[in-house]
Amino acid sequence: MTVTILTTPFYMATARKQSFDLGSWVQNRAREVDAALDRFLPKASAKPATIHKAMRYSLFAGGKRMRPALVLAAAEACGGAVAPALPLACAVECIHTYSLIHDDLPAMDNDDFRRGKPTNHKVFGEGIAVLAGDALLTQAFEIAALSEAWPRYSHKDIILEIARASGSLQLIAGQVADLEGEGKELTVPQLKYIHERKTSALLCASVRLGGMSANCTPAQLKALTDFGYNVGLAFQVIDDILDVTQTTEKLGKTAGKDITAQKATYPRLVGLEKSRAIAARLTARSFEALQPFKGRAFALEALAHYLLNREH
Amino acid sequence: MTVTILTTPFYMATARKQSFDLGSWVQNRAREVDAALDRFLPKASAKPATIHKAMRYSLFAGGKRMRPALVLAAAEACGGAVAPALPLACAVECIHTYSLIHDDLPAMDNDDFRRGKPTNHKVFGEGIAVLAGDALLTQAFEIAALSEAWPRYSHKDIILEIARASGSLQLIAGQVADLEGEGKELTVPQLKYIHERKTSALLCASVRLGGMSANCTPAQLKALTDFGYNVGLAFQVIDDILDVTQTTEKLGKTAGKDITAQKATYPRLVGLEKSRAIAARLTARSFEALQPFKGRAFALEALAHYLLNREH
Repeated sequence: MTVTILTTPFYMATARKQSFDLGSWVQNRAREVDAALDRFLPKASAKPATIHKAMRYSLFAGGKRMRPALVLAAAEACGGAVAPALPLACAVECIHTYSLIHDDLPAMDNDDFRRGKPTNHKVFGEGIAVLAGDALLTQAFEIAALSEAWPRYSHKDIILEIARASGSLQLIAGQVADLEGEGKELTVPQLKYIHERKTSALLCASVRLGGMSANCTPAQLKALTDFGYNVGLAFQVIDDILDVTQTTEKLGKTAGKDITAQKATYPRLVGLEKSRAIAARLTARSFEALQPFKGRAFALEALAHYLLNREH
Repeated sequence: MTVTILTTPFYMATARKQSFDLGSWVQNRAREVDAALDRFLPKASAKPATIHKAMRYSLFAGGKRMRPALVLAAAEACGGAVAPALPLACAVECIHTYSLIHDDLPAMDNDDFRRGKPTNHKVFGEGIAVLAGDALLTQAFEIAALSEAWPRYSHKDIILEIARASGSLQLIAGQVADLEGEGKELTVPQLKYIHERKTSALLCASVRLGGMSANCTPAQLKALTDFGYNVGLAFQVIDDILDVTQTTEKLGKTAGKDITAQKATYPRLVGLEKSRAIAARLTARSFEALQPFKGRAFALEALAHYLLNREH
């Protein structure tokens, strides 16, 4: 797909009309990420084979590699290369995949399908699914520690970034609040609290880690933080919208699940049109955040455009 | 309790008769570890309160703090202080507690009691128990990253040590093999494989991390590795023995569980007397490993004596 980025004065004073082939870019980056994940993870035959098969089953189940793409796009925006950002891209994908495996468990969202395939516990059983999630979470920190050190950002900074974004005050807090909110009437601020933690926290960490791998300036790190936060919220609002407007086949996961589970969603709380307006506003804020990159953040901009306009 | 360490020529050429009050030592260290864990963890009231209550419920459920004690004793043996070893002691206790919470789940060992109290999922439900384990695992890496850096050992070394000992080739591999071995006739080598991973891996990492926090020499690290490996195996053999010889009340967990679950144990495979001989031999090897410390490893020796002679 080709995304044409128009001159939009509110976010990019120096922008010219740019054509950036996001499709090729994403495909190439995903290939590099997949190869790196394959190198970092124990082989499927490594003893005990069950756990490594289970880890790889979900890790290579056709995920969009959105978080790794954000890591690599942020590195690029800060003038960095792919190689030093790659371990961090793999680490966030391991975190994301672990969280999906555990979220899908019967004790949580109880989902049978994910990305059009049976969920991890449907294939390997609940015990192994819990352990495969644990193993991917642990693997994320091992991979992050194997990254190179940077002049401005140490391994300590990197590990803290990942641990805090995934911990009990962020990613896990979101899942807990989501679990506790089921069947209850939530307010918009409560729903936003969940989205900030379930989605924005790790997206924000992804772009920050990409920046760190490029030894970015504090101003760039601040811009990436704002960008990640807003893109994360927008992404989640769109997820809510797609759940009510798309079919199971197109989504690759059970559509209408949020309604069945009586989950609070933006369309349910504020209606479909207002939800779309909120998503558009959040994306506009994301673009504003990219101003300091003065038009060098092609991949990040294109990714944000794509995430707002996606249909599955 | 007072453990008297006798002159035992096979492991300590220069040893004199030493009296070391292990009871006071363990009590003082446990107090310091508990205070540090309380500082490192979000308050029980931190939002969402459920997850922080669940994390703290299992973390402060009266565990023996054996792994933190090993971290601190190893640091002492290498001439190090308590303060720099404390974050690592807390990190391994978080890992240990997470593994217990997940092991106790219905999909795994399905245990209702742990340390004389209802298990995490019995109190908070399965979903929260999975997430509390996830959160403690994540917290372990955050705490480890918050430790000071050492001249010989970087944050990278520390994180790799913890991640590898807890990962899919060690701690989690042991749990998988244990799960898959239930109801099957295992051989002694297969049982040893499980014990090496389920117990030795983290005990070994504990003493190594203690040594690292004291900036130990490579020779000291090697000695600690041998010590931790053998103490870990001995500990697990004794656990098997206690399961068949002690009451539920004394153990603080359901006794005879291994028999009910048809789990392979040393007493079941080689008999009670031979199991005791194996445990004694492994402990003797642990003491031999401490030779390079020339009688300075009082706490480590006393801990090993205690672990071999414990009754619960």
